Amino acid sequence: MTRSLLFVTGTRADFGKLEPLAIAACDADHDVSFFVTGMHMLARYGLTKLEVQRVSGVPTHEFLNQRPGDPQDMILAKTVMGFSDFVKEHRPDLVIIHGDRVEALACALVCATNYIPCAHIEGGEVSGTIDEIYRHCNSKLAAHHFVSSEDAARRVKLLGEADSHIHVIGSPELDFHAGPSGVTIDKVKDRYAITADDFGICVFHPVTSEADTIGTQAKALFDALMQSGRYFVVIAPNNDPGSADIFAQIDQLPKDRFRVLPSMRFAHFSELMKNAAVMVGNSSAGVREAPFIGLPSLDIGTRQTNRAKASSVFFADAAEAEGIAQFLATQWGKKYPRDAAFGGGSAAERFVNALSQDAFWTAPMQKTFQETTD
Amino acid sequence: MTRSLLFVTGTRADFGKLEPLAIAACDADHDVSFFVTGMHMLARYGLTKLEVQRVSGVPTHEFLNQRPGDPQDMILAKTVMGFSDFVKEHRPDLVIIHGDRVEALACALVCATNYIPCAHIEGGEVSGTIDEIYRHCNSKLAAHHFVSSEDAARRVKLLGEADSHIHVIGSPELDFHAGPSGVTIDKVKDRYAITADDFGICVFHPVTSEADTIGTQAKALFDALMQSGRYFVVIAPNNDPGSADIFAQIDQLPKDRFRVLPSMRFAHFSELMKNAAVMVGNSSAGVREAPFIGLPSLDIGTRQTNRAKASSVFFADAAEAEGIAQFLATQWGKKYPRDAAFGGGSAAERFVNALSQDAFWTAPMQKTFQETTD
Amino acid sequence: MTRSLLFVTGTRADFGKLEPLAIAACDADHDVSFFVTGMHMLARYGLTKLEVQRVSGVPTHEFLNQRPGDPQDMILAKTVMGFSDFVKEHRPDLVIIHGDRVEALACALVCATNYIPCAHIEGGEVSGTIDEIYRHCNSKLAAHHFVSSEDAARRVKLLGEADSHIHVIGSPELDFHAGPSGVTIDKVKDRYAITADDFGICVFHPVTSEADTIGTQAKALFDALMQSGRYFVVIAPNNDPGSADIFAQIDQLPKDRFRVLPSMRFAHFSELMKNAAVMVGNSSAGVREAPFIGLPSLDIGTRQTNRAKASSVFFADAAEAEGIAQFLATQWGKKYPRDAAFGGGSAAERFVNALSQDAFWTAPMQKTFQETTD
Amino acid sequence: MTRSLLFVTGTRADFGKLEPLAIAACDADHDVSFFVTGMHMLARYGLTKLEVQRVSGVPTHEFLNQRPGDPQDMILAKTVMGFSDFVKEHRPDLVIIHGDRVEALACALVCATNYIPCAHIEGGEVSGTIDEIYRHCNSKLAAHHFVSSEDAARRVKLLGEADSHIHVIGSPELDFHAGPSGVTIDKVKDRYAITADDFGICVFHPVTSEADTIGTQAKALFDALMQSGRYFVVIAPNNDPGSADIFAQIDQLPKDRFRVLPSMRFAHFSELMKNAAVMVGNSSAGVREAPFIGLPSLDIGTRQTNRAKASSVFFADAAEAEGIAQFLATQWGKKYPRDAAFGGGSAAERFVNALSQDAFWTAPMQKTFQETTD
Repeated sequence: MTRSLLFVTGTRADFGKLEPLAIAACDADHDVSFFVTGMHMLARYGLTKLEVQRVSGVPTHEFLNQRPGDPQDMILAKTVMGFSDFVKEHRPDLVIIHGDRVEALACALVCATNYIPCAHIEGGEVSGTIDEIYRHCNSKLAAHHFVSSEDAARRVKLLGEADSHIHVIGSPELDFHAGPSGVTIDKVKDRYAITADDFGICVFHPVTSEADTIGTQAKALFDALMQSGRYFVVIAPNNDPGSADIFAQIDQLPKDRFRVLPSMRFAHFSELMKNAAVMVGNSSAGVREAPFIGLPSLDIGTRQTNRAKASSVFFADAAEAEGIAQFLATQWGKKYPRDAAFGGGSAAERFVNALSQDAFWTAPMQKTFQETTD
Repeated sequence: MTRSLLFVTGTRADFGKLEPLAIAACDADHDVSFFVTGMHMLARYGLTKLEVQRVSGVPTHEFLNQRPGDPQDMILAKTVMGFSDFVKEHRPDLVIIHGDRVEALACALVCATNYIPCAHIEGGEVSGTIDEIYRHCNSKLAAHHFVSSEDAARRVKLLGEADSHIHVIGSPELDFHAGPSGVTIDKVKDRYAITADDFGICVFHPVTSEADTIGTQAKALFDALMQSGRYFVVIAPNNDPGSADIFAQIDQLPKDRFRVLPSMRFAHFSELMKNAAVMVGNSSAGVREAPFIGLPSLDIGTRQTNRAKASSVFFADAAEAEGIAQFLATQWGKKYPRDAAFGGGSAAERFVNALSQDAFWTAPMQKTFQETTD
Repeated sequence: MTRSLLFVTGTRADFGKLEPLAIAACDADHDVSFFVTGMHMLARYGLTKLEVQRVSGVPTHEFLNQRPGDPQDMILAKTVMGFSDFVKEHRPDLVIIHGDRVEALACALVCATNYIPCAHIEGGEVSGTIDEIYRHCNSKLAAHHFVSSEDAARRVKLLGEADSHIHVIGSPELDFHAGPSGVTIDKVKDRYAITADDFGICVFHPVTSEADTIGTQAKALFDALMQSGRYFVVIAPNNDPGSADIFAQIDQLPKDRFRVLPSMRFAHFSELMKNAAVMVGNSSAGVREAPFIGLPSLDIGTRQTNRAKASSVFFADAAEAEGIAQFLATQWGKKYPRDAAFGGGSAAERFVNALSQDAFWTAPMQKTFQETTD
Repeated sequence: MTRSLLFVTGTRADFGKLEPLAIAACDADHDVSFFVTGMHMLARYGLTKLEVQRVSGVPTHEFLNQRPGDPQDMILAKTVMGFSDFVKEHRPDLVIIHGDRVEALACALVCATNYIPCAHIEGGEVSGTIDEIYRHCNSKLAAHHFVSSEDAARRVKLLGEADSHIHVIGSPELDFHAGPSGVTIDKVKDRYAITADDFGICVFHPVTSEADTIGTQAKALFDALMQSGRYFVVIAPNNDPGSADIFAQIDQLPKDRFRVLPSMRFAHFSELMKNAAVMVGNSSAGVREAPFIGLPSLDIGTRQTNRAKASSVFFADAAEAEGIAQFLATQWGKKYPRDAAFGGGSAAERFVNALSQDAFWTAPMQKTFQETTD
C-alpha cells in the first residue's frame, strides 16, 4: 500500500543518510517528499538544498528556519511552528527524522503532539556531546527506530522502547559507499578544482559544549596539518555554535595546500574518500564511513567519543601535534579491510522491508515503557 | 552558598508539588523565584497564579503562553521563546521543572540549549498516556532527578542517567498532607460553599490521546455519580485537548448535588481530602495522595494506568456503571492505613539536603549514557 | 543596472497584478524572484503556488505562514519572523508588495526595520473595509508608490508621501486584459468543465468586519442567483475570517447550474470574463477589470465601497433580491465601452521605466512628511 | 460607566506620559491596568517595571518581549504574539498606546486585527527619524487620537482621520511639571548620589538610521561636555540599535564629573530639570519639557528634527564642538518664560473628559478616509 513519507533533512550529513532510504521508498511506490530546512537553506553552508532538489521524483518543501547567530532554542521554536503548520496542511503518514540535531528534535516534538508516527534513523548512539541527549529524546518521541548497530539497538531498548519497533539496518550512507560512486576521481578533482593526486581529507566541526575553545583547537589542528607538508581537501564545518571561529582559521590556510569546499555532492565525496590517503577531523564519516571504505582515519577531540571501535581509527586531541604528525607519517596511504560493524550496505533494503509490514502501520501511538531485564 | 533557583509552574497540580520544595529552599537561604505560566494564567482554570503570588518571600515572573484552543506544539514553541528570553535576562543557577507537561518540556529544552542545569521532579513514572514520553524526555534533558519512589529511580537509571544524580525524595505534595492543613473543614466548606457534610470528591481530566471519546466518558461517569444519590465536590479539569467536552457535561450537573469548583487552594484541598468519604476520577491525587491519607479512591480509565499499587485504590472504566456503583456502595466512608510507597512526607527536606552538597553544583552539563547491567 | 527584485505574493488576486510587473522587470534584465506565501500554499484555495512556479525564469521562495483558523495577527507575526530571516539571507535590493493584506503588511514592516526599500503597488485606494487601514500603513512603510489612478495618487500624497515617489501606472492586471489571453474560450470551458455557453461569473469574498453575517449574505445572494435560472461560474472565496460560512453555502449549490472552482489560471480567467454575460459579487475584478473589458457587473455589499465609478457597475446588498433580479434581467449579455479610469494597459511598462531611473535607487530611506497645501 | 482601559508601556519615556492619564482614568473610576514590556523589563535599562508597579491601584501585566541584540522585527513579532494572547484572555474595552516605538505598533496591530478600539497618544508628530513612520502607522491603526498640539492634529487629519476622533490635549508629561514634584532637590541629589549643586543634564539616545556613526557622535558630544569643565547628570540611552556604542563612551566618562544613571523616577527627574542649569542631548524632554519649565536646552543632531520651535531651544550637531561650547557658555543657568505650545498641563483632565462621552465608545471600528480640502 502506498504511504506518504516525509523525510526531514537539515544538513548535507543527514541527507547523505536519508537519501538512499528515500530513493528506495520511492522505488517501492511510496509517496515520498523532503522537508528541507536548517543549513541546507543557507548560502554560507553551500546552499545544499539544491542537492536535495536533484533527487528525481521526490518533491521538496523548503523552510528557512534560522538566520546566522540564532540561538539553538530559537531555531527549535521556529522549526516547531513551521513544521506544525506544515503537517496540518500535508498530514504525512510517516515522518522520518535522523540523528541528534535540533531540527530533527523539533519535528519529532511536532509529530508527538499531533499523533503522527515518526521514524528515527540512527538512534541509540553515544557521541560524548551535548547533542547526544537530543538523540535520546528523539528515540523517546519516535514510534519506530532504525538503528545502525546492535549496540545502538541495545541502548534504544534500555530507553524503554519495544523490541518489535527497533530495526537494525546499518548506517544508510554505507549503502552508497558499497557500490560504485558513478563518477571518476578525475571528474571529482576537476569539478572541485583539487590539484593534487595524493591528498588527505579534513572535516572539523564545532563541538557545542566547547564553543569557546574550538577556535584554538582548529588552529592547533590546521597547524599540525601544515607541518606535514601534505595536501588536504577541507570541508567547511556545520553551523553549530563555534563555527565562526573555525571559519576564521580556515580562511587563513594557504590555498595551494588546502582546498576548502563549502560542501560536496555525496557521490563525489564518496569517490573522494575512496581515493584519499587519510581522513582527519571529527566528523562521523571519519569513524564510520572511513572504516567501511578501509581508509585510515584520525579522530580529533571529543565529538565522536565512544562511537568508533574499528582498528583503522586512531585518536588525538587537536593540541597533540606529535600524535597527529605520527598518524600522518605512518598511516598515509594505507588500506584496511572493510569494517562492517555499522552495516553491510543494505540499510535501504531493510528499511523498505520494514515499511512493507502491515504491523508497522497499525502500531499504537501510545507506547508502554518496556523494562528490560536481561 | 546561596544559589538562584527558578521553579517553573504551569498548573495548580505541579504547584502543589513544587511549593513545599520552594519554601524549603527559601528557608535554606536560597534565592528562590517562580516562573508562572500555563493554566495558572487563564481565568477559565481559576487564575491560580494568584495562589503562587501568595507564597511569601518568593517573587513570581509571569508569562502567558497560550490562548484557548492553541495546539500543544504552538504552546511549546511560545514557551521556548519566552523562557529563552527570560533565562538570558535572569540566568538562574538552577531551573526546577516538574512532571510531563509541555511547559516543563519547553523549559527543559531551553535549559539544555543554554547550558543551565535543570532539576526534574518526579521523573521515571509511567502513566499510560502520551504525555509519558515528555516526562522521559525531561529526564534525558535534566541534569538532576528528584523522584518519588524506588521504581521511578530504577526507570530513570534505565534511561541512562547516572545513579549519583538520582535522588529518591518521595512525592512532595505528601509533605503537605503529612502535617495539619492549617484550616478547619468548616472553614473550607464555608469558603467554597460546600453544603453537605458527607461528600465525595471527583476530579476528571482529559486524556489527550482519547480526546474524541472523553465527552462520552465524562457523561457516563457523571451519570453513575448521579445514580448514587451522593453529594460530590467536582474540581474542573485541566486544559488539555478534550477539556471543553468535559466542561460541557459538568455544566449540566444539578447544583444541589454537585459543587463545581474551578480550583481550590492546596491547604483547603488537603483538608477536604482528609474529610471526604471517597475520591473518584483520574487525577494523580486519587492514586497517590488518597492512599497516603487513607482515603478509598476509584481510578477511572487509562490516565493513571500503572501508577497505583495501594490496596485502597480501585479501578473502573467510565462506562462501567455497575463497577462505579459497587465502589461507591462498599467503600464510601471507609478508612485505610497510610500507604508510604511514594514517600513519608520529607521530600522538601531531602531536596534541600541534596542542594547543600557541593558536588551537586559542580556536575558537568555533558552526561555520559550509563548502561545498567543489573 | 541589474537589481534584485523580490515580489511578495499571497493570493491569486495579487499575483494577477504582480505577474505582469515581474515579467517586465525580468525582461528588463533585473534579477527577479517571488516570495510565495499566504493562500497560495493552501490546498483549500487551489494551491496556486503552482501558478507562480510556472512563471518562466523567475525562481520562487515558498513560505507556509498559516494554518486554517489562524488569527490574522498570528499570521502577521509568523510572516514577520519568516520574512525577516529570508531578507537576512537574501538581501534583495527592492521588495515589491501589493495592496492591503496582512502578508504585505508583514513584509513592509520587515523592510522598514531592516532598511530595505519597499515598493507598494495600488496604494491610496479606499475600500470601505477594515483592511483599508493596512493599505495606508503599507503606504507609510513603503519608499515607492505605484498607484492605479490619479485619485489614489492624491490620497497617497495626503498621507504625507513625496510626489516624486508616487507613480501613476494604472492597475497592472489590466495589462493582461488589454491583449489577447492566449487561450480560446472553448479550451477554458473544456479545462474547467464549464458546460454552458451563456454564463455569468460570481466571486463573493468575506468582509472581515462582517464575519458574523457573511453566511447569511452568501445565502441570500446565491438564492437570488438560483431564482434567475441562469448558469454561473463561481470562484471560491479567499481565506479571510468568514470564508467557512461562504463555503458552507457554496457546498449546497446544485452542480448543474453552478460550476464552483477553487481558482483559475489568470489567462483563463481573463478569457472567461471576456465571454461572460455578467459579473456578480464583491471582488475587485468586478469593479475594476469588468469595466475595462466592458462587462456589466453587480457589486454586492460594502467590500468595494467607494472603489467604483464606471457606468457599467451596479450596486445591491446581498439581501436585495429584487435589485439583483433586475440587474440580471436587464444587463445580461450587454456590452459597454472600455473604461480606462484605472489605466490603459501599460502598467508594467511604466513600472520598469521608473526602475530604470538612477534617482529611484538613491532615494533616502528616511522620509520627510510632506504637508500638502493644495 | 466603568470601562476597562489597558495602557501599553515599553519605556520610562512613554510611562512618563501615560502615567498621568492612567491615574486620572483610575480616579474617574475606570478599571485601569498596564501592559508592561520592552525596556521596562531589562536590568540594563534600570528595570523600570518597578516604577510602573508603584502606581497605586493599577495592576500590571508584564511581558518580556526581547533579549539584548534582538532585531526590531523580531521584537515586533514576539510582542504581537504575546499581546494577542493577552487581549484574547483579558479583552479590554480600550487599549492606549503612545508614540512611535515598535511595541506600540505591535499592540496597535493586534487591536486592529481583533477589533479592539485603540487610542494613540501623541500622534501626528514629525521627528526626522525612521521611527516617525511607525507613529503614522499607529495613527492609521488607532480609532482615537490624543495629540499634543494643533500642528499634530492637522497632520493626523491629513492622514485621513476624522476630526471628531482627534483630541488636542497637550503633552501629558507637562501635567506633571506643571505642579510641584513632591520631592525636594536635596532628596533627589541624595538618592541618586549627585554631588554638585550646579549641574547640567545630558540624555543622548541612538538614532536608528545612524547606528553606525552614533558611537562617534557620542564621543564628540561627551568630549565637548568634558571641555566645559561642568558637572553633568547623564541618563543612559534607550535600547535602540546603536545603544551599545553610546554605552561604550559613557563607560569611559570620569565619575567625578559625570553622574551616570540608568534611569530616574519621574518625580525626581522633574525636580532635577527644574533645578538644572541646562539640558543637552536629543531626548524629547529637551525640546518639549525643558521649554515648558523654562530651561535652556541644546538639541543635538537629527533625532528631534522639526519637533521644536521654542526660543529656549538651540541646535548643534554632535561634531560641532564650538557650537556646543558657546551654548554652555552663554545659556548656563538662564531662565526662560514658560512655553505652552505643547499644552498647559491639563492633558489628563482633557483625556478623561473625552472618555466620559458616550459617542467615544460607540464609534465604529471601520473608518472612512477623510479627504481634507482646506
